[in-house]
Parts: sequence; structure tokens; C-alpha cells
Amino acid sequence: MAQTRIRCAIIGASGYTGAELIRLLRSHPHADIAALSANSHAGQHMQDVFPHLFYDTLPPLTTTEAINFDDIDVAFCCLPHATSQKIIATLPKHLKIIDLSADFRLVDAEAYRHWYGEEHHAPALQAEALYGLTEHYRTDLPNHRLIANPGCYPTCSLLPLLPLAKAGMLEADPVIIDAKSGVSGAGRTIKQGMLYNEVSEGMTAYSVNHHRHMGELHQELGLALGAQPSITFVPHLIPQKRGMVATIYARLQSGYDINAARAQLHQTYANEPFVHLMPQGNVPSTHSVRGSNHCLINIFAGSDARSIILISVIDNLMKGASGQAVQNMNLLCGFPETEGLMGSALFP
Amino acid sequence: MAQTRIRCAIIGASGYTGAELIRLLRSHPHADIAALSANSHAGQHMQDVFPHLFYDTLPPLTTTEAINFDDIDVAFCCLPHATSQKIIATLPKHLKIIDLSADFRLVDAEAYRHWYGEEHHAPALQAEALYGLTEHYRTDLPNHRLIANPGCYPTCSLLPLLPLAKAGMLEADPVIIDAKSGVSGAGRTIKQGMLYNEVSEGMTAYSVNHHRHMGELHQELGLALGAQPSITFVPHLIPQKRGMVATIYARLQSGYDINAARAQLHQTYANEPFVHLMPQGNVPSTHSVRGSNHCLINIFAGSDARSIILISVIDNLMKGASGQAVQNMNLLCGFPETEGLMGSALFP
Amino acid sequence: MAQTRIRCAIIGASGYTGAELIRLLRSHPHADIAALSANSHAGQHMQDVFPHLFYDTLPPLTTTEAINFDDIDVAFCCLPHATSQKIIATLPKHLKIIDLSADFRLVDAEAYRHWYGEEHHAPALQAEALYGLTEHYRTDLPNHRLIANPGCYPTCSLLPLLPLAKAGMLEADPVIIDAKSGVSGAGRTIKQGMLYNEVSEGMTAYSVNHHRHMGELHQELGLALGAQPSITFVPHLIPQKRGMVATIYARLQSGYDINAARAQLHQTYANEPFVHLMPQGNVPSTHSVRGSNHCLINIFAGSDARSIILISVIDNLMKGASGQAVQNMNLLCGFPETEGLMGSALFP
Amino acid sequence: MAQTRIRCAIIGASGYTGAELIRLLRSHPHADIAALSANSHAGQHMQDVFPHLFYDTLPPLTTTEAINFDDIDVAFCCLPHATSQKIIATLPKHLKIIDLSADFRLVDAEAYRHWYGEEHHAPALQAEALYGLTEHYRTDLPNHRLIANPGCYPTCSLLPLLPLAKAGMLEADPVIIDAKSGVSGAGRTIKQGMLYNEVSEGMTAYSVNHHRHMGELHQELGLALGAQPSITFVPHLIPQKRGMVATIYARLQSGYDINAARAQLHQTYANEPFVHLMPQGNVPSTHSVRGSNHCLINIFAGSDARSIILISVIDNLMKGASGQAVQNMNLLCGFPETEGLMGSALFP
Repeated sequence: MAQTRIRCAIIGASGYTGAELIRLLRSHPHADIAALSANSHAGQHMQDVFPHLFYDTLPPLTTTEAINFDDIDVAFCCLPHATSQKIIATLPKHLKIIDLSADFRLVDAEAYRHWYGEEHHAPALQAEALYGLTEHYRTDLPNHRLIANPGCYPTCSLLPLLPLAKAGMLEADPVIIDAKSGVSGAGRTIKQGMLYNEVSEGMTAYSVNHHRHMGELHQELGLALGAQPSITFVPHLIPQKRGMVATIYARLQSGYDINAARAQLHQTYANEPFVHLMPQGNVPSTHSVRGSNHCLINIFAGSDARSIILISVIDNLMKGASGQAVQNMNLLCGFPETEGLMGSALFP
Repeated sequence: MAQTRIRCAIIGASGYTGAELIRLLRSHPHADIAALSANSHAGQHMQDVFPHLFYDTLPPLTTTEAINFDDIDVAFCCLPHATSQKIIATLPKHLKIIDLSADFRLVDAEAYRHWYGEEHHAPALQAEALYGLTEHYRTDLPNHRLIANPGCYPTCSLLPLLPLAKAGMLEADPVIIDAKSGVSGAGRTIKQGMLYNEVSEGMTAYSVNHHRHMGELHQELGLALGAQPSITFVPHLIPQKRGMVATIYARLQSGYDINAARAQLHQTYANEPFVHLMPQGNVPSTHSVRGSNHCLINIFAGSDARSIILISVIDNLMKGASGQAVQNMNLLCGFPETEGLMGSALFP
Repeated sequence: MAQTRIRCAIIGASGYTGAELIRLLRSHPHADIAALSANSHAGQHMQDVFPHLFYDTLPPLTTTEAINFDDIDVAFCCLPHATSQKIIATLPKHLKIIDLSADFRLVDAEAYRHWYGEEHHAPALQAEALYGLTEHYRTDLPNHRLIANPGCYPTCSLLPLLPLAKAGMLEADPVIIDAKSGVSGAGRTIKQGMLYNEVSEGMTAYSVNHHRHMGELHQELGLALGAQPSITFVPHLIPQKRGMVATIYARLQSGYDINAARAQLHQTYANEPFVHLMPQGNVPSTHSVRGSNHCLINIFAGSDARSIILISVIDNLMKGASGQAVQNMNLLCGFPETEGLMGSALFP
Repeated sequence: MAQTRIRCAIIGASGYTGAELIRLLRSHPHADIAALSANSHAGQHMQDVFPHLFYDTLPPLTTTEAINFDDIDVAFCCLPHATSQKIIATLPKHLKIIDLSADFRLVDAEAYRHWYGEEHHAPALQAEALYGLTEHYRTDLPNHRLIANPGCYPTCSLLPLLPLAKAGMLEADPVIIDAKSGVSGAGRTIKQGMLYNEVSEGMTAYSVNHHRHMGELHQELGLALGAQPSITFVPHLIPQKRGMVATIYARLQSGYDINAARAQLHQTYANEPFVHLMPQGNVPSTHSVRGSNHCLINIFAGSDARSIILISVIDNLMKGASGQAVQNMNLLCGFPETEGLMGSALFP
């Protein structure tokens, strides 16, 4: 399919990840936005729900049922978990699907039940899906038709951790992830805690050590380590819209020091277009990635020779959601991986 | 020169308008960034002064004197007023120049002295320059080599006013412009009043009815009216980075009503790529233009049949500065006017 | 009743004005918080709905019906309009009542119907009420038992306008009020447009020239002028929590100039504890009034000798709501007017 | 001296901690502000440097040399480190002094040299000083005349750690402190990195594991543990003005579990007016302490039975600086410890 135009549908387009996909796809050289669904807004136009999209001729919002998927090559699914699996189970098999929900990220049905509090209803699809952390599943990705786009916290945390874990450099215990996220990660859901008055000029931890993204973190870090990791995970809500920092406290295996770890990170990411190890001493800032698909990481010395501090930043709506989704679409469709994704960060 | 590649220099690249030009030019299909100067940062790289530009291979920052302008087709000048005219006077004549300072915006040297408090030192160049409010000087623009890129407040205010003034619909007195701007309009200058602690969660008017941009407003509105307008202008500093609103209170000439005025605005801008009259009743928001080159305007009824309220929004760094500069470059060089400028607003 | 302790009830305590009343009353030297109602939260504690009130022993939230008003001296009513009148109609007659809703601000039932879209159901109470713009109704205030606490926009706008109107200095047409408000003015209602992601880093006008507070503005300015004013009113939503600016464009009657107007403002407010005419040229900022009951005003020259620009700032939750309510309570109860209200602004 | 009025001087009053002291002292029932110095602003009034202080009759700003200290009972010193020690060395011996700089916090001159990069020039005074973490030095405090007011990060971190350390429950290794601070902690210094445009809507770690406050943390935690702790400390700059979170990852000694630790925290702080252990599961938010002197803490389970997560929040300008300074003044002068400090948090 490479280099021909593809037709995309966005299912559940009325949220922030949907709008961000539209921002990316409308200037993508090989993709057309062919259908948009949002059941609660069917009959409206995207401009009605997102005024900043006023200037484009976009397809009207319909119900998902009203989309003729025969005409569609790739579907992005931006529905909540549990709903997502039900809808995807009904979609025709020729579709390439990138699911931005959590529904197909966990290989183990028991883990899904533990973290999401209910049975998985599409275990066959789950078996078919691939975890779409692009840099680490790039080779296998084109062989799949259903990609489970990773969560924002796991993306931000796993990118610095996996190279060390895979190289046998990382101890499995402890892995402490102190994460900070802008509030767009909570989506467009209307909740008191997300009001401007309740968010601006204050911050707080939440879901202390029991956030659902821990399921993904355990699975993927466990695979890389070949052992069950001991993960502590505390996310914080920060008064900004986009941007995420993972500050990770971990230990190296005996025989490795920070120079070895830095070299490993360098080797893994030196040629990556979107993941960058910063020069020694430079501290990644979310200002540098706002609106872009980049992830900046760095490594710092901890309190002794084997303790390390990894810092990683992404834009949670981009590399943490819609940007990585388009990156995966590019791979699924045989396009250059960076197509449509090389826009600069917006600063200030 | 159309459709060939051009080589651009940015003089004074270490400020926000310089960084924004880089954001735009690096993805422009026909422009290359060939030289960057910033005298106080000569020898550094843009990454050193703007970490979000880490991922590009940009030319190093040099002094302006060190640029070989023989190799350059277009120079963007992002220096402060008074300095700008001195530097531009030294540049070779083959260059197309877009000056983002105020130095060449005022045709009348006396007006310059009045608003900027000093003599103009390059009156010949001033005579050569064209005021670059693109939509209203588009035809004449390609005949000039020095473009005075308009100020942000005048751009935002004149776009809704000029069509009515030119059509003879607008009374010259009163024209009251209540403007609100994000703080990036103040540039990257390090001042106490621009500190986060002094800006966040508060707002204030400033330069009440004596802001320098009033010179441009008088000149351009006067030209359109064929009469000297009576302008009241109060700008306000708002705790956001980008975005500007002009709320304008004015009166129509006898014989015109709001429908006629709306029709005139519609006629003027219906086919414009960047200036949009919104549907009746819709209120423009700066959220809709953050990071984009668009201007949204609308017209509302005032307290009687001939009183109108015009509301206009832009991103002050885009249509109010660097975006309009690239729009002007496109016209100067024979490229399609929208080239490199059709990126979506970033929302949220 | 002066200098004895009074017992206060807050009806509808779960919103921002309720919480702000608690902040003020808990350190008031003569007032006790005796009852708190919030029907949708009955049975909870204030700490459950406002965690920042954790450290106080406050009465539990009950239904309004469950309050024993025999024990109460003063009731603050923080309910929405229409609801407020119904509840207040049921309250015993010994109570002093300060109503923060719009229900008793408009003397004319027709005006109420026009601006609020429904009949007034307690016209007798309406006749009994006094408009509680403290500085201008101070003498009459202790003779009333029902005070209609003014809206935030009218408070901010009328304070600079009334002295000039009463002195016969102000023309009735035009009076243009361009107002900017932080989002706490919208209350704690959970709406998409109030989400952090939809508010931060953007601004917009709203209710252009048809905001409900125009009813109050017309009534009170008309009374002061002895004539029907022509008011244009455009409010704007600004990305900050507290703080309001009214920038007012008006004209002086023939025979008056800005010096006379300034002298009049000085004479009116020179000894006021909460309303302050700033030194000539100083521009009021909402940073100076955050969390305080002060109003700062100044006057500037417009485009000709009789045109003036008035700028006024308040904290909308304080002088624009709960602060002025306590100020009125002080007067109603014979306490010094400034009691409990002299806390500094919080800066930064 | 108890219950008589005291006369206070603020040395270095033109910064945020100086302004915050004025906010607190002007409503303190037993303190008068008798002198204010700020060498670079001598001759100005506080209103000139902090417009929100317009309404008070405050002493003019002078040089420090111009203060007649014979008239002063208590001096607050808000100067930068290194400067502070020089000035304090010149002050008369009858003065009680609360130094908000770092100059007298470190008992060990070698530690001072290590963290501050220069010799200490007043070692005799250093020996005389007491570390003013009020809750833990309350008994000894009245015996001292020079109090080294703790840093904001150490205050926020030590309050939850010390009770466990003193009780022998805490392992010395590892103690990982991931801290997040609003930008007022950086003071009013005019730096590019503190501009609104560079701070809003982004965050970053800084001084990764080498922040100067680590000296205090080592000293005080070491004293409590009776052993040298292994501390990892990563502060982050967050886009808000006030507010600080310390998220601490630590381990309990064998034989203790989280219930024992919670009981210990409860026992230590149950009767404290300003330090509060929240109910189990409640997550402290900086929204709850903005503008107040409170510290909220809680404890959560880590990845195994002996791993704990402590979360602590303060307002860095209050309990982290000026509030604790006034708390210490109250103790030094024999006033009730809470005098002038019981104002509510400002929310929203």
C-alpha cells in the first residue's frame, strides 16, 4: 500500500486524541480523513465540538454504525476502554486498526481484570494485537492489523527503561517512577477536578501506586527484564495542558555503571527520529516537546555508583497518544515512519 | 523566482519571532534557513538559546556582520526598532527584506519621531518600504523589496476595520479599540513585569491610550477612511503566552446598518485563506488560532442601530508577526501565499 | 446588636462564594458560622467538597430545610437566581438576609423578566430589598433586612461611574464597558467550557452586549444619571481564577474635563477603606486585589477633552461577591464596616 | 516580652519573602513593622516595588545601615546567602534574628563550603544559631536569639521523615525525595528561565541530585537517624506560583509496617496546629495550603510491606519561608505559636 493514499476513520473523534489525530492527518501527505464518528455528537461537525478546526472541510460526525468501513483502510479507535473492545470486535477484518484505549495492551486476561475491574470480552482480538511502543516493536508491527497504542505514562517510562532492561543492566527491584502529567491526559471528560478553578496554580499526586497504567508497565518491563519487576508508580496532576515527565529511580546490576547505561541508551536511540538522549547534564523539559512527537531522555547519577535517575519527557497527546498512533499507522502502511510528524514543538 | 528554493537569513534570531520563523521555515517546501544571527549569542547554536529546536541541523548563530548576504535571497529582520533601520541600511540591494520591527511602518517621519521618540535615520529606505498587511497590500507587495511587517495590535485591529473604512461605511470618530494580548508580545526581554510570578493569575491595562502601535493604526485607518480617525486604544496584558483579542467599538455612517457591514466583511474576506468572518453570533476565541496564521473576526450589534462591535483574534506571534512575515515572503517570492502556513491550531 | 456575636447561616455553601464566605467569617471577630446547607451534599462536611477547609470545625452540610433558623441572625444566600427567591420567601422574618443571587437586584419586575427570562415570584420581597453596593447605599443599608448583593461586573463598573453620574458630569450615551473576568465568576458549575484544557492559555468574549448584568447596570446607572443610559457591555473570559477589570469608555458633559472628574472621584472615595483612586498615571492591576476586598480605580484621558477612560479592578469573589456581602453584614449588624475584611492581597 | 507589642525590622524587604512577612505581620496582633530595608530600593516605598501593598502605611524602604536597631526587637533577614551572614554579624546583640537565608542552617562549616562554594565568614554566629524547623525544635527555640529558618524543600521533606527517623523506624538508605515546586521559590530574581513565557504550560527537573538544600536534608535527617542517610533529591519546577509537593520513597526498618509508621506520624502531629496527617487514602494537594501555614502529609504503601511513600505539601512562601519565620518569632517572643497565622488557604 506504500505511497498510495489511504483513507482513515477516527472512531470517537470528539475527544482530545481525536482532535489531535485530525491535526496530524490533515497535513499528512498520504492520508485522507474519510470518516469521523462520535455517537453523542452524530449530525454535528467537528467545528461544533472543536472550534479551532473551523477552516477545514472535514467529514461530518456520524455514529460509528453509520461508517461504511468498506471504504476505509485504517481506523483509529479513540473510545474508552471496555467500549473499545466491543466496537472493534464488530469491525471488518480488512481494516488496520490502531486502538488508543487500554483494551488490547495487556496480553494477560487476568491482568486486564485486575487493573480494569472487568472481564475482557474479546480475548481472540487481544491475542491478535501488538503493543505499539513503536521503537521497540517496529519490526513486528507491519505483521499485525490491530495495534494497541500504549498509554502515555508507559510510553514515557518504558522508553528510557527498556534499553537497560533488555541489555541486562537493570535490577528488577526497585523501579520507582514518579510521573507528572498535564491535565489533557484526563481527556475531555467533564469533571469537577478538571475545572480551571480546581487545577490552575496547584498540583497533587493521585492514584498513588495503583494507577491502571501499572499493568502495562509490569508487562512490558517484565518482558524486557525476563523477570517480574517491583514497580512503584506515583502520578501527579500538574497545572498545564500538555506534557509529561517521568522521573525514574532505579539501580543497575552489579558490574554496570552510569557510563555503561548511558552508552546503552545512546546505542539504542542514536538513530531514532523521535527518541533522543540529551547531552550529559542537560535536563529534559516538556517545553521542548509541546505539540511534537519527540521524547527526550537523560540519565543522571543517583546516590551511589549503581543508582541511576532517568528523566523522560513527552507530549502526552503526541508521543503519548495520537502522535505515536500516526507513527504506527506509517509503519502499518509502509510509509516513512516520520511522515506527517516532523512539526516543531510550539514554544513559547 | 517562483517554485525554486530560496535561501533565508534571520537577523536577530534569538527572540520569539526568530524562533517562530524557524518553526515555519524549516517545514516550508521552498525555503532554506541559510543564516542566523544574534550578536549577543554569536558562536552558540539555536539549541543553546531555544532547547525546543534541538532536533534540527540549523546554521550556527553568528553576528549579523558575519553573514555573507551574497548567498541570501530573503532576510527577516527581528531586531528592535531603531537598531533595525541601521542594520537594514547596510544590507545589499538584491535582498528582499521583511522587517518585523516598527522602523518602516510609518510613512511620516514626524509620526515616527512622535511615537518612537527619536529621528528616523533611514528616510530613503522608509520611502521604499511597503506596509505588509498582506490582505490589503497583496497586489502591490511583489513590487517592493522592503516590507514593513505590521505590529500585532494593528494587524488584529485593522483586519476588521479596513473593509468598512474603505467602503465608506465607518465613522472616523469614535474608534475605540480595547485590546488584550498574551505576554509573548513583549518578546523575550527579561523584565520583572514579565516574570511568571508577576503575570500568572492577574491582568492589567498598560500604555493606556499612548501605545506606540497607535501610530500605525492612525496611518492605516486614516488612509482607508480618507480622513483622520479619532482612535482610543487601550491594550491589556493577559496571563497567557500567545493570543490577542481586539474588541472594537465603532459607529457606521448614516445609511448603513450591521447587515450592510457584515455583508461588506463577508465580501472582503470570503475567499481569504487566513481571515475568516465567523457565522453570526459566534464569538472568536484565541484558542482557535494558537500557533496558526488565522484571524477570526465577527461583528455584533452595539447599543443602537449604527453602533457596532467588532471582535478579532489572532496569534500575535503568527498572523501578528512571524506568520504574516512568511505570508509576505511567499508573495515576494512568487510562492502560493499559504505555503508553509496551513498548520492547524494547537488545541488544547 | 453591635459588638455582640452573631450567628450566621450560609445557604448553598458548596460553591465558591460559600467557601469564600467561610474563609472570611471564620476569622471574623463577631461572627460564628452556625449552619451550612447544600442540598446536593447534605450529610457531607465542607472538607468533603472543599479540602482546603480541612482544619476547621465547621457545622455539617445539611439541607436548607434542616436549618433551625430560630438560632440564626444572618443568612447568606448563595443559590442560583430563581431558586434563591423561592427559598428566601420561606425564611422567618427576624432574619437579616444577604442574597448573592440576582433575584432581588432589579426593582422592576419587567426588567427581571427581560434579563432572566421568567417571572419574578416574590415581588413583595423584591420591594423590600436594597441593592447592596455598599459605598453608595451605606446610609440606607441598616434599615433593611434583605440586601441584594450586587453582581461582580456591576460592582466593578458602577464604582467608578456612579460618582461622575451623580455629580452630573457624565453623558448618558455612550457608556462602553469592556470587562474581563477570571473564571471563578462562572462558579463551580461543571461545564466543558470551564475545563482547564479549554481555558488555560486562551481568551474570548462572551454574551456580547446581552449579558444579564446589564439589567443592574442600566438600573443603577440610570438612577444616578437621572436618565436612561446607553450602555454597551462586552465581558471576556480570561485564563485566571480571580480578578476582574472593567475598562470603561465614556464622555463628560460639556463644561467638565478630566481634572474635574478626577477631583470628583477623589472626593467620593478619599476616605473609603475599600475603594481607592490611584495616583495619576498608575494602572490598576488585578494582582493588587487578589483575595482582598479592595477596588482600585483610575481615570485616563480619551481621544478628546471630554472623553475619559475609567479602569477599575476587583477580586470578583471578594468585592464582587463574598467580601462585599460581609461588608454589608457588618453594616446590617452595626459592626465596623471593615471588620474581618482587612486581609492583604495574596501576591504572588 | 510576652503579650507586649514588639517592633520588627525586615532586612531585604523587596523580595517575595519580605512581602509575605509584611502580609502576615500587618495583621499580627502583637507585632509592628518598624523598619524595612532594601538597599537597591532605598528611598522608595513598598508600594513602589509591590503595588498590592498600596493600602498600608508602612515605613519607607531604607538601606540596612540606616535602620536604628536600638528600636527593634526582632529582625527578619531576607537577604541572599553569603550576604546574610555579613549583615547579621554587624547587628546588635539584643536583637532576636530570624534568618531566611541558608547561612546558618548548616552546623558543619565544611558542609557549608561544599554546598555553597565558599567559606563561612561568621562561624561564631553559626554556632549560636538554631535550625528553626519549628515542630522539631520548639522546646529549644526560645533559648536562642538567632534562628536559621529552614529551606522550603527541607521543611516539606523533613516534616514527614523526622518522626519515623527519630522513632528508629526508617532505613537510612534509600531515601528518595522527588520534589515539585512552584516558581516563587526562585524568588523575584529576574532571569530568563523565570519569564512567564518560559514557565507557563511546561515543567522540568533541575539541579538533579545536587541541589543545595541537600546539605540541610543530610544534616537534619542524619541527626534524627543517628546515621548518615543516603538521600537522592530531584526538584522540579512546576508552572504555578506557590506550592510544593515532596513525594518520598523510603523503607521501614525490619519489624515495622505502614500501620506502625502511620501511628507514629499520627502521634507526632495529632495536636499540631500546622502539620496534619490526612485520613488514610487522602492525597494532599497544594490547593489546600495556598497562602496558609499548613503542611499536609500522608503515607501510602509502596511495592512491598516495608516500602512506603510519604507525600507532603506546603506553600513554599508560608510554611516554607515567611509563615514558619513568623511561627518562630511567636515562640521567640513568647506569643501563642499560631498568632497571626491562622488565615485560611485561598481557594480557588
